[in-house]
Amino acid sequence: MHRISLLGSGLIGMFYTMALHGHRRPDRVHINYSRSEDRARELAQKWGIPHYTSNLQDAINDPQTDVVICALPNHLHEEAVVAAAEAGKAVLCTKPLGRNAAEARRMLEAVERTGVFAAYLEDLCYTPKTLRALEAVRRGTVGKVLWVRSRETHPGPHSDWFWNREFSGGGAIIDLGCHCIEIARNFIGKDIRPVEVMCWGDTLVHPIEAEDNAIGLVRYENGAVGQFEVSWSFRGGMDLRDEVAGTDGTIWLNHWLRTGFDMYTAGGERDYIAEKAEGKTGWLFPVGDETGSLGYNDMFTDAFDSLDAGRPPAETFYDGYVVNAIIDAAYASIESKTWQPVDLPIWRGRTDVEHIAVQRDYDADHALLKQELMPDGTTKLILRHKHSGQVINRMMTLPRNQ
Amino acid sequence: MHRISLLGSGLIGMFYTMALHGHRRPDRVHINYSRSEDRARELAQKWGIPHYTSNLQDAINDPQTDVVICALPNHLHEEAVVAAAEAGKAVLCTKPLGRNAAEARRMLEAVERTGVFAAYLEDLCYTPKTLRALEAVRRGTVGKVLWVRSRETHPGPHSDWFWNREFSGGGAIIDLGCHCIEIARNFIGKDIRPVEVMCWGDTLVHPIEAEDNAIGLVRYENGAVGQFEVSWSFRGGMDLRDEVAGTDGTIWLNHWLRTGFDMYTAGGERDYIAEKAEGKTGWLFPVGDETGSLGYNDMFTDAFDSLDAGRPPAETFYDGYVVNAIIDAAYASIESKTWQPVDLPIWRGRTDVEHIAVQRDYDADHALLKQELMPDGTTKLILRHKHSGQVINRMMTLPRNQ
Amino acid sequence: MHRISLLGSGLIGMFYTMALHGHRRPDRVHINYSRSEDRARELAQKWGIPHYTSNLQDAINDPQTDVVICALPNHLHEEAVVAAAEAGKAVLCTKPLGRNAAEARRMLEAVERTGVFAAYLEDLCYTPKTLRALEAVRRGTVGKVLWVRSRETHPGPHSDWFWNREFSGGGAIIDLGCHCIEIARNFIGKDIRPVEVMCWGDTLVHPIEAEDNAIGLVRYENGAVGQFEVSWSFRGGMDLRDEVAGTDGTIWLNHWLRTGFDMYTAGGERDYIAEKAEGKTGWLFPVGDETGSLGYNDMFTDAFDSLDAGRPPAETFYDGYVVNAIIDAAYASIESKTWQPVDLPIWRGRTDVEHIAVQRDYDADHALLKQELMPDGTTKLILRHKHSGQVINRMMTLPRNQ
Amino acid sequence: MHRISLLGSGLIGMFYTMALHGHRRPDRVHINYSRSEDRARELAQKWGIPHYTSNLQDAINDPQTDVVICALPNHLHEEAVVAAAEAGKAVLCTKPLGRNAAEARRMLEAVERTGVFAAYLEDLCYTPKTLRALEAVRRGTVGKVLWVRSRETHPGPHSDWFWNREFSGGGAIIDLGCHCIEIARNFIGKDIRPVEVMCWGDTLVHPIEAEDNAIGLVRYENGAVGQFEVSWSFRGGMDLRDEVAGTDGTIWLNHWLRTGFDMYTAGGERDYIAEKAEGKTGWLFPVGDETGSLGYNDMFTDAFDSLDAGRPPAETFYDGYVVNAIIDAAYASIESKTWQPVDLPIWRGRTDVEHIAVQRDYDADHALLKQELMPDGTTKLILRHKHSGQVINRMMTLPRNQ
Repeated sequence: MHRISLLGSGLIGMFYTMALHGHRRPDRVHINYSRSEDRARELAQKWGIPHYTSNLQDAINDPQTDVVICALPNHLHEEAVVAAAEAGKAVLCTKPLGRNAAEARRMLEAVERTGVFAAYLEDLCYTPKTLRALEAVRRGTVGKVLWVRSRETHPGPHSDWFWNREFSGGGAIIDLGCHCIEIARNFIGKDIRPVEVMCWGDTLVHPIEAEDNAIGLVRYENGAVGQFEVSWSFRGGMDLRDEVAGTDGTIWLNHWLRTGFDMYTAGGERDYIAEKAEGKTGWLFPVGDETGSLGYNDMFTDAFDSLDAGRPPAETFYDGYVVNAIIDAAYASIESKTWQPVDLPIWRGRTDVEHIAVQRDYDADHALLKQELMPDGTTKLILRHKHSGQVINRMMTLPRNQ
Repeated sequence: MHRISLLGSGLIGMFYTMALHGHRRPDRVHINYSRSEDRARELAQKWGIPHYTSNLQDAINDPQTDVVICALPNHLHEEAVVAAAEAGKAVLCTKPLGRNAAEARRMLEAVERTGVFAAYLEDLCYTPKTLRALEAVRRGTVGKVLWVRSRETHPGPHSDWFWNREFSGGGAIIDLGCHCIEIARNFIGKDIRPVEVMCWGDTLVHPIEAEDNAIGLVRYENGAVGQFEVSWSFRGGMDLRDEVAGTDGTIWLNHWLRTGFDMYTAGGERDYIAEKAEGKTGWLFPVGDETGSLGYNDMFTDAFDSLDAGRPPAETFYDGYVVNAIIDAAYASIESKTWQPVDLPIWRGRTDVEHIAVQRDYDADHALLKQELMPDGTTKLILRHKHSGQVINRMMTLPRNQ
Repeated sequence: MHRISLLGSGLIGMFYTMALHGHRRPDRVHINYSRSEDRARELAQKWGIPHYTSNLQDAINDPQTDVVICALPNHLHEEAVVAAAEAGKAVLCTKPLGRNAAEARRMLEAVERTGVFAAYLEDLCYTPKTLRALEAVRRGTVGKVLWVRSRETHPGPHSDWFWNREFSGGGAIIDLGCHCIEIARNFIGKDIRPVEVMCWGDTLVHPIEAEDNAIGLVRYENGAVGQFEVSWSFRGGMDLRDEVAGTDGTIWLNHWLRTGFDMYTAGGERDYIAEKAEGKTGWLFPVGDETGSLGYNDMFTDAFDSLDAGRPPAETFYDGYVVNAIIDAAYASIESKTWQPVDLPIWRGRTDVEHIAVQRDYDADHALLKQELMPDGTTKLILRHKHSGQVINRMMTLPRNQ
Repeated sequence: MHRISLLGSGLIGMFYTMALHGHRRPDRVHINYSRSEDRARELAQKWGIPHYTSNLQDAINDPQTDVVICALPNHLHEEAVVAAAEAGKAVLCTKPLGRNAAEARRMLEAVERTGVFAAYLEDLCYTPKTLRALEAVRRGTVGKVLWVRSRETHPGPHSDWFWNREFSGGGAIIDLGCHCIEIARNFIGKDIRPVEVMCWGDTLVHPIEAEDNAIGLVRYENGAVGQFEVSWSFRGGMDLRDEVAGTDGTIWLNHWLRTGFDMYTAGGERDYIAEKAEGKTGWLFPVGDETGSLGYNDMFTDAFDSLDAGRPPAETFYDGYVVNAIIDAAYASIESKTWQPVDLPIWRGRTDVEHIAVQRDYDADHALLKQELMPDGTTKLILRHKHSGQVINRMMTLPRNQ
């Protein structure tokens, strides 16, 4: 059972508190810090938090707490995290870890230097669907992972500072792409080095400096690709989808807009529907368990269980640092209009990984390219001669039901 | 924080323990009772339960526990529940409460006589989607509820005793229909009296005496209908769907087979996929969070929070009794081939409820039956003269976008 | 190539003309009859129909046409069909054939007496999905058909006469149930006799005499059940779904609201969206090919190809008569609150059909009730001793991937 | 009514004939040419084609035909199309038009020089869903189009020559990307110039030289992006999806794997399921009307109606040429790892198009960035000061239901 100093009182702070205080969990937010004392008081009263303050150091150094959760705007992470580490507190920091890899690296070094427990609060790597899919991928259910697509698009963030490039470190990529990048890393394998990034980003809709739409490709050493698609101008709610393409299988996850909950209302829904929902009449798509579906429940279970067990959590500050390095390369690629290398002076995974290779032999001389049942009931094989490279068709009538 | 005597070591006992011991919850199963000492030991070892026994009274009367959870086969509920009540323990009993209303009534009377806390563990009324949908319905989002359909179908239950009518009290209706009936009651309103039942049931596939397929209609005093559809011969997994039709809206819930998790595997999934899943290759539809999606998490949160707060839980033994009375009428209807009244000597809801009525006036003389946009862009109104009853069409060209 | 007298100028007449005149088909509507000369002229001008009239006999007896299509309100079918048959024209009549079995039987006798070609225009039995599913069912893909559910619900019909019980012959059952009943007959087998019907119907929402919501069960001689669900008060568009439950498989068809076309519009769709669509903003679900998806294209292909080939179409007047007989029993069941026999003095299918039976032997002494993979990786068999009737569990650890 | 020389007897030739000869259409394939006389004879016998030949010139110059349809492998298009144009026949050529823009340009010049009618058989731009969505987009239903994603992935093509880069002109991009590129052009506007392309392609799975996986971004002059995703190694069938993101709306089209037809079979489907389907047991996703859903029906209706009316079809050889030019840039981008300009010496669209711009004023001083309903029921506005650029939050409690 832990007592927590929660830094930040925005939407994320609220979601974190909802998750922590729900379902009879023992760990409690003990004190809330907000830059605005009013907001700190409001959050405290609403969620039964005994103390609040607008003094950051007071919150971090509260002698009754042993855990600091940083849910502050991006530009305030470093100061808070370093202070918490130096205070000897376990530190849990929201995503993205830094505005860039340099910041992230300093935070990583701070927690490693002080030896405190540190968890990277990358909730979308902890959704129940993602956890289940990861188990399947690790068991080999889809074969070798070739291409992971992850998408987060919605009509734009909920706080002013997100829209300011200086405070947030960028636009939709730093806000949403950090999720997508780390989801793909999990499926491809965190020990496989991200090599280079190609990225398009543009400011299509909003009168801001940062990109409000972007897509990026991260190429890993084994040839696999992690694709992120992000937007602050999507209409219709929040589109949270992940896809894994493997040599032997496929996974499609839809976390938000199409999860088996359809509601039509002619008169209109008077209340909150779901995060980033748009519209209040007609067909709406609520989410049953928001904190669970966003991964908050399993994320905190992992973080506190790991803290208690003295083991690192599934998502570490090192992971946050790698994500920031990939994002740095993405921003460089937008500018240079070329692929950009991922600069990772600290690399803790495998090296000299071979390129994905698949060999399906048909017979001694031929590789099998493809087998398909045709509309006329015959089966067509496409074979490639191993030496000449010639490709041939072979039609077969297989016995029924094979 | 409570210590629990868990009676039963089957699939339900295992799911209950998974839910209770997950996510850092404080309440723990302290002792497991099973008719088989081997199974009791196995469950205890797997889930960290400190004690086990094959002596029912020892489990119930363990001085270290204050809560008894009954997860036994249906024919053993009454004895266990009455003993637990007499031991002064809080009693949580799995569904269905009894094999029939007479058993259920005796259990209800036992907990009311002894004054112990009692919860009816009707998990599917606690799924996050159901809870969210109930909030919307209670806010009026879909208008007046007219027709609730609830379906649970799968390839058949997982334990021998279910297939024996004497032990279970029936077939698919008592096993699955109890969920559907109570889901519909929640949406229609628990204070509205169920009046009569029409039911079809047949043994279509399995060499058993009990029905393996059934559909029933429960007519409530206000004219609303609760429909349950159950099957032990469905192919393709477990189909768990609920629908609410209201005067102003519609809700469709899909809890299991189509929840935004699609997986294709050519090689095959080697591990467990989801409860009642069939097949291990091709397109599979896993569930991310099984215990959450089945309602176990929210059910135990409600039960223990209610126990701590000294208030009744959302699902009470009285609810279980009403469900049993409806099921009794359903079985009678199969036999008599007519609608059968629901016999409810104990009725605690409203009386003299009026029939649902909707009045949409078009003008002083006409009621509006319908308005529809036609393919040619005109809008057609169907009006009914209030006195003559004559129905007329009226075509209108509305301004764009109205 | 045929020239057609089209009787009726309502929504159905328009859909028929759209289908007939689309995709370079050779058969043309030559003359349109409407009770209102204005509507006849309007339809003719819009769709390039060379002639129109408000005189029924002139349309039927037009010497240039060889085919009469009846798309009139239900109470006008009999007169028009009999006149067309007596004029020696091929007759295609929309659904339902009659307002009741007596009318339908007289129409059947008229076309058989005169020997003209006759087709029952039951479009929803001809949707591409239905045709494809029927092929699969007939090949045995889902095993023996046990239970067919068919649903058509929407916010109510588009013409005044539908709402008048005298003109239409009833309410939602005669309007929509006729589709559902015949869809189920196709899947169960048209040669299997419908034996009895249980039906609930009620007027829940609209100020009319006829039922606006109903559900009925048709029990066939082999034990299979055809279920129809109909409503004139559904909110959210038109819900057209069919389901087939077989001993070895399952089919789910969704024809309208969820077919892979999702559109969100904040500003609003200014034009027609789909038949019976509600709302013009937010999430909308258009249909790509309405006439195709409703079966009109394949229906007319079958009717005219059959006419040319001198063979009966897939849907005949006899089928229409059987459907009317089932509907008659459904209305009787609503009144009597009991199952009602289907009165079919003319029966052209099989007799003495045996009840569906399935036998899956496990070994000499046991029948296999069920096999399921459990969360712990073991496989559980449920077996029933053939003589004693005792049901037992047997746990097995199967080799991986079996 | 036209008589057709069909060149080619592969899967596409078969699908074309199925579409042309279905639904009582008047236009008939008169002669089939195949390089293999056996395959020509087989196709002719199966589909009632009166003549066949293995002599290309005989087929093209058959005096009884006025239309030549080219369904040959890519490397044979140019010769056949030029010969048909010189023979004065109307020419319909399958996709892609050429293996590269140079070939496509010579074909374009041939039909323009001879003045024959020419149609580019880009079927996926004619699916009923696409046509319907295009109407909506052109009406402004989704506002300004920002980003179009189009995906075609499956387990690989059905004929040997596709796998040979020399014959086909490339790999998955030339095979599948040509569809996606033209779909995006339709939604973005064919008059908007494609400026540059960034593309990743790799050979991840098959032992071939060409790319079996690729993704490309086409940037248009107004800033809109057309994204194509293609794969020859997708597992689970054929994934055909298009998405349109606009300033005011969203469109999601699923043409193949999730269209409202789900079938589970334990025993297995013995027959053909759908193009590129994988597996025959478990959950299968057939398509009701394959030729319709792939756009063949509407494509030929447009081509022949346009030919009869003396107007160009919706998809012209010029469109095919533009698509080839974009593909050329994509292949160059894979090599150079940078954005590559689209080389279009012949440009017939608009010039000097402005960048997409959206301005939503909140008041005289502020632009509205975003409005969102928060979980606590308040509404949050994000505003940006027009001059200072400062972004602020403003919380509002709106009256209910606004």
